[in-house]
Amino acid sequence: MILMIEKILLAQTLKRLPRMGWLISGIPNPESVADHSFGVAFISLLLLNKIKEEGVKIDENRVLKMAIIHDIGEALITDIPLRAQKYLDKDAAEDKAVKEIFPEFYELYREYQEGKSLEAQLVKFADKIDMVLQAWQYELSGNKNLEDFWRALEELEKLEIARYFKELLEEVRRLKGDI
Amino acid sequence: MILMIEKILLAQTLKRLPRMGWLISGIPNPESVADHSFGVAFISLLLLNKIKEEGVKIDENRVLKMAIIHDIGEALITDIPLRAQKYLDKDAAEDKAVKEIFPEFYELYREYQEGKSLEAQLVKFADKIDMVLQAWQYELSGNKNLEDFWRALEELEKLEIARYFKELLEEVRRLKGDI
Amino acid sequence: MILMIEKILLAQTLKRLPRMGWLISGIPNPESVADHSFGVAFISLLLLNKIKEEGVKIDENRVLKMAIIHDIGEALITDIPLRAQKYLDKDAAEDKAVKEIFPEFYELYREYQEGKSLEAQLVKFADKIDMVLQAWQYELSGNKNLEDFWRALEELEKLEIARYFKELLEEVRRLKGDI
Amino acid sequence: MILMIEKILLAQTLKRLPRMGWLISGIPNPESVADHSFGVAFISLLLLNKIKEEGVKIDENRVLKMAIIHDIGEALITDIPLRAQKYLDKDAAEDKAVKEIFPEFYELYREYQEGKSLEAQLVKFADKIDMVLQAWQYELSGNKNLEDFWRALEELEKLEIARYFKELLEEVRRLKGDI
Amino acid sequence: MILMIEKILLAQTLKRLPRMGWLISGIPNPESVADHSFGVAFISLLLLNKIKEEGVKIDENRVLKMAIIHDIGEALITDIPLRAQKYLDKDAAEDKAVKEIFPEFYELYREYQEGKSLEAQLVKFADKIDMVLQAWQYELSGNKNLEDFWRALEELEKLEIARYFKELLEEVRRLKGDI
Amino acid sequence: MILMIEKILLAQTLKRLPRMGWLISGIPNPESVADHSFGVAFISLLLLNKIKEEGVKIDENRVLKMAIIHDIGEALITDIPLRAQKYLDKDAAEDKAVKEIFPEFYELYREYQEGKSLEAQLVKFADKIDMVLQAWQYELSGNKNLEDFWRALEELEKLEIARYFKELLEEVRRLKGDI
Repeated sequence: MILMIEKILLAQTLKRLPRMGWLISGIPNPESVADHSFGVAFISLLLLNKIKEEGVKIDENRVLKMAIIHDIGEALITDIPLRAQKYLDKDAAEDKAVKEIFPEFYELYREYQEGKSLEAQLVKFADKIDMVLQAWQYELSGNKNLEDFWRALEELEKLEIARYFKELLEEVRRLKGDI
Repeated sequence: MILMIEKILLAQTLKRLPRMGWLISGIPNPESVADHSFGVAFISLLLLNKIKEEGVKIDENRVLKMAIIHDIGEALITDIPLRAQKYLDKDAAEDKAVKEIFPEFYELYREYQEGKSLEAQLVKFADKIDMVLQAWQYELSGNKNLEDFWRALEELEKLEIARYFKELLEEVRRLKGDI
Repeated sequence: MILMIEKILLAQTLKRLPRMGWLISGIPNPESVADHSFGVAFISLLLLNKIKEEGVKIDENRVLKMAIIHDIGEALITDIPLRAQKYLDKDAAEDKAVKEIFPEFYELYREYQEGKSLEAQLVKFADKIDMVLQAWQYELSGNKNLEDFWRALEELEKLEIARYFKELLEEVRRLKGDI
Repeated sequence: MILMIEKILLAQTLKRLPRMGWLISGIPNPESVADHSFGVAFISLLLLNKIKEEGVKIDENRVLKMAIIHDIGEALITDIPLRAQKYLDKDAAEDKAVKEIFPEFYELYREYQEGKSLEAQLVKFADKIDMVLQAWQYELSGNKNLEDFWRALEELEKLEIARYFKELLEEVRRLKGDI
Repeated sequence: MILMIEKILLAQTLKRLPRMGWLISGIPNPESVADHSFGVAFISLLLLNKIKEEGVKIDENRVLKMAIIHDIGEALITDIPLRAQKYLDKDAAEDKAVKEIFPEFYELYREYQEGKSLEAQLVKFADKIDMVLQAWQYELSGNKNLEDFWRALEELEKLEIARYFKELLEEVRRLKGDI
Repeated sequence: MILMIEKILLAQTLKRLPRMGWLISGIPNPESVADHSFGVAFISLLLLNKIKEEGVKIDENRVLKMAIIHDIGEALITDIPLRAQKYLDKDAAEDKAVKEIFPEFYELYREYQEGKSLEAQLVKFADKIDMVLQAWQYELSGNKNLEDFWRALEELEKLEIARYFKELLEEVRRLKGDI
């Protein structure tokens, strides 16, 4: 059995792991996976407030847990970048790692990966919003190599859940136009 | 009124803000405030699982939200270090900032600051565990200037909630002895 | 009483403290407070040479000391950024800290803060020139988020002492146009 | 067909990719994969000189090429750390990537992976020597978390080729004792 | 006599030494000298394949060795930037250092410096290609201060050996136009 | 003639230049030359106060200017490390550079280099104190490779001016013993 302290030490590895997409695009000292996970959890909080205003029923608890653990597999696997995924199956590897090391979160992890429940959709929405706004920050810092990251915006708009967050999407589009 | 996008961009500042205590102690490129907030949220998840096993009733939802936002005021104030707090009132400043910029989280923030509810105590416990284990990591990396951070361990043991986490505390003590 | 060695170790903290304005604007690994203090001291030297050519009497000694210690309070308080100053009184905190830890420099520090003497004005001029030219360097490195810092240039031109440094101000304006 | 310029830009990615083993062990800003590849190539040069003195026949050309390209697959896959390899097959992934993107080096890459030829053994020896001496440098910098890396030394001694480099192995052992 | 281990430890210094031209131009955390040496060695490999296709006879062995050691003198001298060379003779200093510390590579080093042999020309071509493409990467990351580095492209085209690499030069020009 | 703005931009380069001795000893992201120059200027201020208490006559003005500009030549030459100085004459190079670019400071620079005047001795004393205490900080951060830097302490004690700063030297010795 894995001790609680071992799980914590493993999760803290995420503070040291750079998000590889940024690194490859030429961002010096990019955010860590833990930085991103915080961003996703915080954005999920805001989205939850918004969606509840609209009268939608949603399990807040599951949303928040999913947001916190959605990248926990990377503590073992690292943040293998998109372009590597042609040569290996990152999702399968993370799945195995989460199942073995963090079995208590495995069900939530699966739900997130499948992305069907309203809760999983909200976290996926938050995941992309964090990425897109981080791309904007790095563009402000000068980087010209991030067009690929903005494509996520189009994907976002296709998600069913997007209809609750039209204002936010519009604010993001306006920001993007500002650069 | 502050737009949702503005709140997100402010919260993302925490990814760039170093934890000042480490910086002053001579850690090069220490974790960010967002890194730490992720650590606290993740540890809170583990503690919740443990305390529920003991049959204790606790509002998971409030714990997770509190963990995520417990340092959100630092997005405006930065992580002013302990030794500065003789000359200014950091808590009062953060209080004002959270009230003005993140009013939706103000009540939770107050509850955390007061530290009386079981939920707040759990997050405070997680906050110190993250700090103490991070100190251990930095000691592994060589730093010899972190004795002050370990004092938190004694404070931890005095918290009423500590009785549910004796095993973890023992694991931490054993680790500390290993160095 | 505080030992000389303690004062030195405190002042050396400034080598590790990032200038927060840059960090918040997205500069990776920005200059330290000590870097900036060196810049101000060196620019003050050049301005002194210039103003003496114009036949103006000025106490060089006080100028140089003021330049060296003008941010010494940040060794205790850190470089709290502008946007935090709505929620706390940074100047009051620094004042208290300098008075307690570096009493021998308190009078000079007050003179600088008040900014009335010719000597204080010259150092304030140097402080802004260092910031504006550093902003220019960071814009060369790609950052697009620094317009606020350039406003200092207009303030500079309003200072009474500015009339001795018209050439330099013009050179700065020309540089800014070059970007 | 992949243009020569594309191959170069891909290989230059290795300058930005941190060696993950160090990062996980808590080294701040560790060497890049390109740094390491340089180390291996340089050490191979010295080993070649030594082994030729002993009158051994060896294809220098193949040794040098193998040393330069031995980690080229990581330009696509990144340096996935040892502990991830329980969950995915890094070697298979690299193999596929090298075959597709750098077919001209595939044969040499296979020879290195198989490690049977004298040439491959020499480069594997250089690979470990670079790692072990880098571990020593990081221990000098303070890190206490690198015992695992030293195990490579025992593996080294078992390689058949080791008998030509006894002096060097002894020098390394002496250094290790010095810490 | 200098031990093999001492030579390795000296060469590993190149992993820590920043390329000074980038640092002065405002690149944060630029590539190391070892990063660059890897780039040159890898590009030389590609150029060798190309030039052999054209039926040109060339000593591969000497090319690869020269590429690996072409900046080895900087392990002692550091990468003194161009603008310093008005005040000191960097080449003479490196020459002395290589002769004393790495006598086994001195002849190759001299051949590279003189730049007359086909082999030396190929490595010089690779050296500039690595620099020019690195400049392009840094421009993608935002830097606007690198025009000087592109002048190397014109020098490249004047080299006799350039006629074998016209395609590559055209690809580079096309890339440059893309920015 | 060199414009004032050009001199400032050159001096600001010192904020980006690492102190090479630390880098070579394995300090990640060491202090800049500007950081050090600030340290020397600040320590000089404290030493001036002390020596005046002893009733010694000293030209404060010259001390402060010398401290600020004592490494200004490195803006052109960079901080070439000790071990390179066997192969080139760093002092001669700096001398030429200061004479050409900063003629107004050349006399002070010479006085510092010669180290005969009381003023020059005080700045040299401050220069070594800053280095020794910085070494201590880096040792606290874990580095074990800095014994060479401490030898400066013995040199310090031989300086004639040392007799005014016995207390400080004793404080430093006590600190050193604490590690």
